[in-house]
Amino acid sequence: MVCGDEKPMVLDPWGSEEIKDYKKLFSEFGLKEFPEKWKRELRHYLFERGIAIAHRDFDKIMERIRNKEEFIVMTGIASSGRLHLGHKMVVDLVLALKKLNGKIFFCIADIDAYTTREKIRTMKEAKEFAVENAANALALGLRKKDIYVQSRKEARYYEFAFEIAKKFTFAELKAIYGELSPGKLAANFLQYADILHAQLPEYCGKMPSVTPVALEQDPHMRAVRDVARKLAYDFCLPSSIYIVHQSGLREGEKMSSSKPETAIFLTDSPEEARKKVFRAFTGGGGTVEEHRRFGGKPEICKVYEIFKYHYPNTKFVKEIYELCRKGELICGDCKKMCAEFLAKFLEKHRKKFEKNLKKAERIVHGEA
Amino acid sequence: MVCGDEKPMVLDPWGSEEIKDYKKLFSEFGLKEFPEKWKRELRHYLFERGIAIAHRDFDKIMERIRNKEEFIVMTGIASSGRLHLGHKMVVDLVLALKKLNGKIFFCIADIDAYTTREKIRTMKEAKEFAVENAANALALGLRKKDIYVQSRKEARYYEFAFEIAKKFTFAELKAIYGELSPGKLAANFLQYADILHAQLPEYCGKMPSVTPVALEQDPHMRAVRDVARKLAYDFCLPSSIYIVHQSGLREGEKMSSSKPETAIFLTDSPEEARKKVFRAFTGGGGTVEEHRRFGGKPEICKVYEIFKYHYPNTKFVKEIYELCRKGELICGDCKKMCAEFLAKFLEKHRKKFEKNLKKAERIVHGEA
Repeated sequence: MVCGDEKPMVLDPWGSEEIKDYKKLFSEFGLKEFPEKWKRELRHYLFERGIAIAHRDFDKIMERIRNKEEFIVMTGIASSGRLHLGHKMVVDLVLALKKLNGKIFFCIADIDAYTTREKIRTMKEAKEFAVENAANALALGLRKKDIYVQSRKEARYYEFAFEIAKKFTFAELKAIYGELSPGKLAANFLQYADILHAQLPEYCGKMPSVTPVALEQDPHMRAVRDVARKLAYDFCLPSSIYIVHQSGLREGEKMSSSKPETAIFLTDSPEEARKKVFRAFTGGGGTVEEHRRFGGKPEICKVYEIFKYHYPNTKFVKEIYELCRKGELICGDCKKMCAEFLAKFLEKHRKKFEKNLKKAERIVHGEA
Repeated sequence: MVCGDEKPMVLDPWGSEEIKDYKKLFSEFGLKEFPEKWKRELRHYLFERGIAIAHRDFDKIMERIRNKEEFIVMTGIASSGRLHLGHKMVVDLVLALKKLNGKIFFCIADIDAYTTREKIRTMKEAKEFAVENAANALALGLRKKDIYVQSRKEARYYEFAFEIAKKFTFAELKAIYGELSPGKLAANFLQYADILHAQLPEYCGKMPSVTPVALEQDPHMRAVRDVARKLAYDFCLPSSIYIVHQSGLREGEKMSSSKPETAIFLTDSPEEARKKVFRAFTGGGGTVEEHRRFGGKPEICKVYEIFKYHYPNTKFVKEIYELCRKGELICGDCKKMCAEFLAKFLEKHRKKFEKNLKKAERIVHGEA
């Protein structure tokens, strides 16, 4: 618990310490902050609340959105574990873009998970995770046709990964990634193919595309744009939006599938989620009295972050922010509300997840 | 032209200078000479004449042949040009093994050709060569079901290449190949998949397999055997037979698609072939008189080599050898016979080639 101290107050319900660090990097990477005007136009809380914080070349996508024209949305997950709230946010963002006429290419990156994770020993294991990942994605609202699995594509896609491989030198790859294993290297070519293949004539043809990524994945995006220029195809250079990931439930940690205590999993029971919320790091005062007197710090609070990333009603989230700041909402009550909100979501999600398991198996293993 | 000199005579119609050099390398590489007993059992001139000169682990294949059981034959071509007599020999060998119950996996390695050849700039170009290569392979006697194209396989095959990639370190790859480009590296994983994938449950399942290779490709075979041991599948370690390639038509050169003067192409006209035969380096004496007096040296003669590699009647080839040695057959007459033999073959081949072009296009580009 952190008491109110002498630091200047930041009165921005969508700000956080992490975001301030991020902003310093934008100009270095050639990115632009997401303009307020666009946030209003896009009418979705993930933009509005600064979770999608910056972009490269999103202008072209805005134009398509304004003209009600299609554009490509490519992203995916290479999870070697259960999906958590952080993954939900990515799917929510994809769904928001889908409503704006995005054509969705949501990749279950089982080959990537296999080649890059030591703990996954065989593709069979990677596919077990893929089934769970796909069932979660369906339960969150994606459709079967929005999803593809790396190990179950058309030959054209793999051929394209080799076309890409020829365009790189080892010097370039080392400059981007440092030391790589051969397996990771091969998986990178497939990931470049993931981002670009939708623009091949066999798929959508030339079309603006956008990929939501975390800021630390930007070298990858720059590499994709470089290779798009070198290939003998007429491609739009892929645009990207940079998302600030929800942090872990403990102080200074990421939300990670491999650390169950940092994450609320989409398949957690309401009771598990409640326990995690009550154990989470908050911005509350040391005692109820101190909290009431000095107010809380929602900008560092993991419980507030759950509301900020997942609670659709923006007015309500702002209220929580204000009430916490003023010390009028105490942590116990706030956690209770959060646990109740999650319990409702998780119960519904669990049902949809189970309903979609068979469909997920067909996506990963093909029709029986 | 080389006159008869003081070197000791090698009275072996199936020997050559190159083969003597090869034999030194066998023990170093852990290979075995092809036993005389097997040559007699296999009843094909390519074995009999020592063109298939050595092997690793072919014992298992001999056992399958004796028991009239199936085995896998995997080889292929990654040509970035027209096919020549050297390629014909490989197809002849595959056809010989097919008659002995071999299940043929003949790969048109268009992705390999694209990634490893500077002159091929796009997959489109690689596929143009692939169509010509496939039409030639069909004209030589392979069937559509014996042939596959790297860029048109099932997802399972590409997935398998990534499974293989994970099993290597860069240190291992550098030890085998020296410096590699990322494209060549990626193509290597696909080539390992070529050799091993037929043993996956989705194809033939565990089954002895044999790949004919040139001696200098042996590091590749050892790498494949190493990775076969590391993968979580029950595979027979792939066997190999080592072939001595037909040399180029000029002294000290390989037969190469990129040097038209060294090769007789399967699509050469009889007239072109005749010219090339008449210009070829021979083992004849400096003058007809010297030839008659000292005899010729078929073991260094490129015209004799054409007979040795392609003329089915062994008795006739032996006769040519003897008559040349004794100086009774002069180069002019021998070249004429050779040109006539080739003319007949090339004329028939050209017709079959043209007849098979559409089928070849379907193999490379799919059904229209």
